[in-house]
Amino acid sequence: MSQAIRDNLKRLLAPRHLAFVGGRSMARALKRCADGGFTGPMWLVNPQHDSLDGIPCVRRVADLPYGPDAVFIATNRELTLACVAELAALGTGGAICYASGFAETGANGAALQHQLISAAGDMALLGPNCYGLLDYLHSAALWPVAHGGKAVEKGVAVLTQSGNFAYNLSMSDRSLPIAYMASVGNQAQLGVAELMDVLLDEPRVTAIGLHLEGLKNVPGFARAAHKALEKGIPIIALKTGVSQIGAELALSHTSSLSGSDALYDSLFARLGVIRVSGPVSFVETLKAAACGNLPGGNCLIALACSGGDAGLIADYAERNQLALPKLDAGQRAELAQVLPSYANLVNPLDFTTASWGDREALERMLETALRTDADAAMLVLDYPAEFTGERKECDLLLALFCAALSRHGKTGFVTSAFPELLPAHARERLHAHGIAALQGVEDALAAWGRIADYQNHRRVLLERGESILAPLCPQPLAGHGLALDEWASKQALRAFGLSTPAAVLSTPGRAIADAKLLGYPLVLKAVSTDLPHKTEAGAVALNLKDGVALTAALEQMREQIGAYAPGIVFDQLLLESMATKPLAELIVGIKRENDFGLALVIGAGGILVELLKDSRSLLLPTTDEAIRNAVLSLRSAALLQGFRGREVADMDALVAAIRAVADYACANAGQLLELDVNPLLVNAHGTLAVDALIRLGDEHAR
Amino acid sequence: MSQAIRDNLKRLLAPRHLAFVGGRSMARALKRCADGGFTGPMWLVNPQHDSLDGIPCVRRVADLPYGPDAVFIATNRELTLACVAELAALGTGGAICYASGFAETGANGAALQHQLISAAGDMALLGPNCYGLLDYLHSAALWPVAHGGKAVEKGVAVLTQSGNFAYNLSMSDRSLPIAYMASVGNQAQLGVAELMDVLLDEPRVTAIGLHLEGLKNVPGFARAAHKALEKGIPIIALKTGVSQIGAELALSHTSSLSGSDALYDSLFARLGVIRVSGPVSFVETLKAAACGNLPGGNCLIALACSGGDAGLIADYAERNQLALPKLDAGQRAELAQVLPSYANLVNPLDFTTASWGDREALERMLETALRTDADAAMLVLDYPAEFTGERKECDLLLALFCAALSRHGKTGFVTSAFPELLPAHARERLHAHGIAALQGVEDALAAWGRIADYQNHRRVLLERGESILAPLCPQPLAGHGLALDEWASKQALRAFGLSTPAAVLSTPGRAIADAKLLGYPLVLKAVSTDLPHKTEAGAVALNLKDGVALTAALEQMREQIGAYAPGIVFDQLLLESMATKPLAELIVGIKRENDFGLALVIGAGGILVELLKDSRSLLLPTTDEAIRNAVLSLRSAALLQGFRGREVADMDALVAAIRAVADYACANAGQLLELDVNPLLVNAHGTLAVDALIRLGDEHAR
Repeated sequence: MSQAIRDNLKRLLAPRHLAFVGGRSMARALKRCADGGFTGPMWLVNPQHDSLDGIPCVRRVADLPYGPDAVFIATNRELTLACVAELAALGTGGAICYASGFAETGANGAALQHQLISAAGDMALLGPNCYGLLDYLHSAALWPVAHGGKAVEKGVAVLTQSGNFAYNLSMSDRSLPIAYMASVGNQAQLGVAELMDVLLDEPRVTAIGLHLEGLKNVPGFARAAHKALEKGIPIIALKTGVSQIGAELALSHTSSLSGSDALYDSLFARLGVIRVSGPVSFVETLKAAACGNLPGGNCLIALACSGGDAGLIADYAERNQLALPKLDAGQRAELAQVLPSYANLVNPLDFTTASWGDREALERMLETALRTDADAAMLVLDYPAEFTGERKECDLLLALFCAALSRHGKTGFVTSAFPELLPAHARERLHAHGIAALQGVEDALAAWGRIADYQNHRRVLLERGESILAPLCPQPLAGHGLALDEWASKQALRAFGLSTPAAVLSTPGRAIADAKLLGYPLVLKAVSTDLPHKTEAGAVALNLKDGVALTAALEQMREQIGAYAPGIVFDQLLLESMATKPLAELIVGIKRENDFGLALVIGAGGILVELLKDSRSLLLPTTDEAIRNAVLSLRSAALLQGFRGREVADMDALVAAIRAVADYACANAGQLLELDVNPLLVNAHGTLAVDALIRLGDEHAR
Repeated sequence: MSQAIRDNLKRLLAPRHLAFVGGRSMARALKRCADGGFTGPMWLVNPQHDSLDGIPCVRRVADLPYGPDAVFIATNRELTLACVAELAALGTGGAICYASGFAETGANGAALQHQLISAAGDMALLGPNCYGLLDYLHSAALWPVAHGGKAVEKGVAVLTQSGNFAYNLSMSDRSLPIAYMASVGNQAQLGVAELMDVLLDEPRVTAIGLHLEGLKNVPGFARAAHKALEKGIPIIALKTGVSQIGAELALSHTSSLSGSDALYDSLFARLGVIRVSGPVSFVETLKAAACGNLPGGNCLIALACSGGDAGLIADYAERNQLALPKLDAGQRAELAQVLPSYANLVNPLDFTTASWGDREALERMLETALRTDADAAMLVLDYPAEFTGERKECDLLLALFCAALSRHGKTGFVTSAFPELLPAHARERLHAHGIAALQGVEDALAAWGRIADYQNHRRVLLERGESILAPLCPQPLAGHGLALDEWASKQALRAFGLSTPAAVLSTPGRAIADAKLLGYPLVLKAVSTDLPHKTEAGAVALNLKDGVALTAALEQMREQIGAYAPGIVFDQLLLESMATKPLAELIVGIKRENDFGLALVIGAGGILVELLKDSRSLLLPTTDEAIRNAVLSLRSAALLQGFRGREVADMDALVAAIRAVADYACANAGQLLELDVNPLLVNAHGTLAVDALIRLGDEHAR
C-alpha cells in the first residue's frame, strides 16, 4: 500500500463528507447516515433524477464541488469503472464498490478488476463485490442496506469476507460496541492486512475481529498483527475452511487463498492472534476485549448467588486455565459475618440470595471478596423477566459490583448462566463502566480465558521482536527440485551446528581401510541422490562389528542395489559410527508452503509419529523458546523428561540441533524446497542426526 | 419406591387439586396458578388469617375436605414436619417441602429429615430444601416464586439440583417447551431416579434434561435410563464437578454423592445418556429432541443464503460427525435453472439472496434440495431487526421450508448464525410444525449431532437388552482386602477362559526337574502374597535358556528376596514358558467403585499407558461389542490393526480374554476388590496374560 493510498484510506475511515452514487437505495443509505447523526456534507449522485426520496441529486460525479472523503458506488460494474476513474480524478479519499462480476467470476472479471484498480490510482478502494463500511465512530454507514448498529465512542473493528455475516452481526442483540465493520469483498486493492494496518492507528479501536476464509497477503497480515501485538490490541479470528468440505467451499469462493488450516494455526500462534470457532465465541471474545480493560493475568475471584452457578464456574475456569485462588482466613472470617451460616466460603463464592436487595450486606461482601491479588473479578447474574418486578435488585447488585471494582482498581466482567438473561440495559451500563457484559457463563469464561492467555502470550512474543515475528515469505519455487545426497545434506547441516555421527565418505575399495580408522561398530550406507529410499533399496547395513561383517555387508549391498535399481553405480559409501540407543527419537523437517514461507515441523519419531500423529509446526524464522515450547507440547514429550526413571534429555542440545536446522533453512530460504532429519536421536548428553535429506529448487540444486 | 408412593407421585404429577401452606407468598403462588389456567380446586392453608391477598384461608390442614393431589408447604422446618404428617393422614397425593435446614446442614438436620420421610409414609414427597415443581402440562406451578414458563401440549422434563438454575431456565428466552421442571433439593424420598421413572410414563414428555452434581441412586438411575432408551426418550445430562474445585463444591453441597466424573462418563455411555457441557448446549439439545421428531441418522441436507453461513455449516457438520451427502446431477441441473449463475451447487447449498421473497423460486429450490435420502434438512436464517421491515421475507421462507419438509415427510431444524436472530414468533411457529428452532449455528449443529449419535447408539444399546445395561451395584466392601498370589490369580482367571503361559508351580528343590518337563526358555518367579511388587523384589527372572541359567537365577533370587524382605520364605516358585514378543501389550483391570459397582479398565500397556494415559472404562456387566469398541477407541489401537506392516492382532481372542476377566469379576462381584492383568500380550494368534493379581474383600480372601 503506497503512502498516498494509505493517506486516502485514513480519509475513508474518518470521513468529513460522503457521496452515494446510485438510485433510490442510495437515497435511503444517505438518509440513514443523516438519521444516524452524520453532520457533514452528503451528496447523492444520479444522472437521471433531480431528486430521489426528497434528496436532491447531483447529475454527475464531475459536478461534485470536490472529491469527498468517502463515496459509496452502487451502480453496475461497467458504470462503476467509469465512476471510480472520475472520483479519483476529483481527489476523492476512498470509494466503495458494491458491484459484483469481477475477479470472483473468472478471467474476464479479473481483467475488469485489474482495470478498476488502475482507475482508482491513489484513491483508496474497498471491494468490489462488498457490502461496504459501517463506521460508528463517525456515524458514516457506507452501506447499501439497513444495519442495526449505533454510534460508539470506542469499540472493535470487524473485517469479514461475508457481507451477510456483517449484516447479521450488526443486528445481533449482544451489545458488542462496534467502531468499524467492513465487508472486504474481493480485496482488489484494500485487503484485510491493509485495513488492519490503518485501523490500528485509530486509538478508539480496542480490538479487531476477523471473519476469514483465508488470507490473500500473509506477510502484510503478519506485519499488521505484529503492530497490533505491540499496541496491545487483540486480534480475534474466526477462520472457516477447517473441514474438507469447508476448505473446498473457501477455494471455490476466492480463487487466490492458500494454505492448509493447520498453517493458519501456526501463523496465528506466532502472532498472538486469538482463534475462535464460531459467531458466539467471536462476539463474546471481542466483548471481553472491547472495553480495553484487559486482565494482567489468569487469576479470578468469582461470585455467584447459587451453588449451581458456582459449580459451572469451577468447571469452566479449570477448562480455560483460569485460576481461582483460595480466599484467605481474614476474608473467610469477614464473609462469615455477613453471609448465612450455610454459605460455602470458597472461591468461586456462592454468596446466596440471603442478602438479595440488601445494599449494606452486599457492599460488605463485595468489599471483602475484592480485597484480593486476583487479576480480575467476575459475577454471575441472571435477570428474571421484566414482569416479575424483581429486576431492581439485580440492578442494585450490578451497581455495587461496578463501584467495588472501581474502588479496588480491578478489571472484571459480569455474565449470566443463560445468555439472554443479561438484558441490554444492564449490558450497556456495564460497558459504560468498562466492564465486559458477557452472555452465557460457559462462553464467558472461555472468552476471558482467551484474553488472559493472550496477555501472557503477548509478553512472551513481544520479547522476540518484530524481525522474528514476521514469517519468511520467499517466492514460490516450481518443480520437484533436486535432492542433495545424505553426505552432502549432513555436511550442509553440520555447517550450521547440527551434530551428526563421526563419518567417512568412502568407496567399496577403500572401505575396510577407512573403517579401521573410524572404528567399529559402524553403519554402512550407499550414497546416491538416486536412492532416496535407502532402506527399501537394501542400501543400509547397521551395527557392523568388524571387517568380516563389513566385507559381507558390502557384497550383499552391491547385490541388493543392483536388483533394486540396476542403473545405479555402487561407488560411493558412507561409513558412520553406530549410535547407541537414544532416550527418544524426533523427526525434524522443513516444508515450503506457498505464501506462508517455510514451516519447521517437529514430530515424535519411531512408532509414535504414525501412532499419535504427534507433531508441531512453526513458521520460520523462530526462536529457541518457541522451539522448546513446541517440543514440550508434543504428546510424547514425557519421554524427554525423565520418563519411567530414565535420564532426562539434553534439552539445550536438542533445541540447538533443531535451531541448526532452522538456521540452515533461513539462510537458504530462496532455494530450499524440503528438508528432513529423521531420526534425530536425543540423548542425556547431546543429540545425533543419523539421517538427513535436503531438496533444493531445480535451478539451485547441484 | 413402593407402589403406593409411585401412585401418589403420579397424582402429584397430574394434579386435580392443589393446596398451598404458608403466608402471603403462597397466596401469590396460588394466584399464579389461577392466572396460568389451573381450573381445579385450590386451597390456601394459614392458621392466622381469614384471607391473604384476597384469597380465603383454611385454618388447618385437617380442615381440608380431602387430601389434595399436590401440596406446597412453605413453612419453617418444624412446622413442615407436622404438616407433612397431617397431609399424609388425609390421603394427600404429594407434598413439596420448601424449607431448608435438613440433611444439608449436618447430623441434626439429617435426623430431622429421617423423621420427615417417616411422617410422609406413602405420600410422595419432593424436597426438602427445594423450589418445587413447575407442571406446564396441567398448569400447576407448585413453586414459591415467579416463573417464566407457559402451558404446553408436550415438552421436556427438567430435573435439577439447583433451584436457581430452574428459575433462570424458566425465564430464559429460548422457547424450550417445558412440560415439567422440578428442583429436587435433598432428594429425601423422591430423587432423580424415581422422578425419571414416573415421568417416562407420561407420553407427552418428549425428552428429559438433568442438571446434576452427582447421583444418589445409581442403580435406580440406570433402570430409569434404560426405560427411557426403550421408549426413545433422550436423556440429556449437564453434570458439574468435572474440575477439582467443582468436585469439592459438589461434595460440600450434597453429602452422599459419589463417584469420579469419569465414572459418570462410563455410566452415561452405557445407557445412551447424552452429556452436555453447559446451559446453552443443555437447552439447545433439549430443543433438538423436544419435538419428538428425531432423525433416523446423521445425514443432512443444509441450506443457507450466504457463503459465510455455508462455510460455518461445513466446518461444524464435520466436527459433529454429521454427513453432508453430495447433490446428484439431476438436483444440480434443476438448481442451476432456479439459482443465479454464481451459486455454488453443493451441499451445504448457498441458495443466495437472489430469490429473496420470491415464493416460486424458493419453492422450486426447496423442492429440489429436499428430494434426498438425507435423514434431515436444515436451514440457516437470521432475521434482521424489526425496524427494517424485512422480516416478512424471512417468514415466507420459513413457511415454505415447513411446508416442504412436511411434503417430503422429513424432519429438520432451523437455526440462525447468531443466537438472538431467530425471534420468538419464528421459533414458536417452527415448534408448532415439529421443527426444532435452534439458536446459533455452532450450538445447533452440535445439538443435532448429539441427537443423531443418540439415535445410532440407541439401536446398538437396545440389542444388548436390559440385563446388560443395568450396572452391577454390589454392596461396598471395607478394608484393603487380601491378595491372591499370582498362581492362584491365574488359576482363577484360567477357569473363566483367560490364556496364561504354560506353567508349573514348583519349589527350589524341584525346579530343575520341573523345568526339564516344561522346556526352556522360561521365566522364574517367586510366588508369595507378601510380594506384590515382584520386579522390585528381584523375584522375577526372564528368558532363562537352560538349567545353568535357572540354577544361577534361583540363587540370585534367594539373595535378592532375602535382602528385600527378610521375613519371606522362598519356597514357592512359578516356572512359565517364556512368551515371544507380542504385537502389543494391554493392561486389563477391575476397580470396585462405590455405587457404580465394578469398572473394567482397558488400557494401553508398556510405555503407552503412562505416556498417553490411554485407557477406557466400562461398567460391568458388559458385552463383547462394548469391549471391542473400547479397545478400538484406544489412541494406540493402531498397534492392533496392522501397524507399519505388522500382522493384525487377533481381535476375537483379545475380546474373549478381556471378557474372561469381566466374567470372573461378575461371578465374584460380591467379594472382588481389585484385579489386574498386566500385561496382556496380544498376538496375531491368541493372547497371553503373563501376570495377574486379584484382591478380594477381607472376609472372602484366603
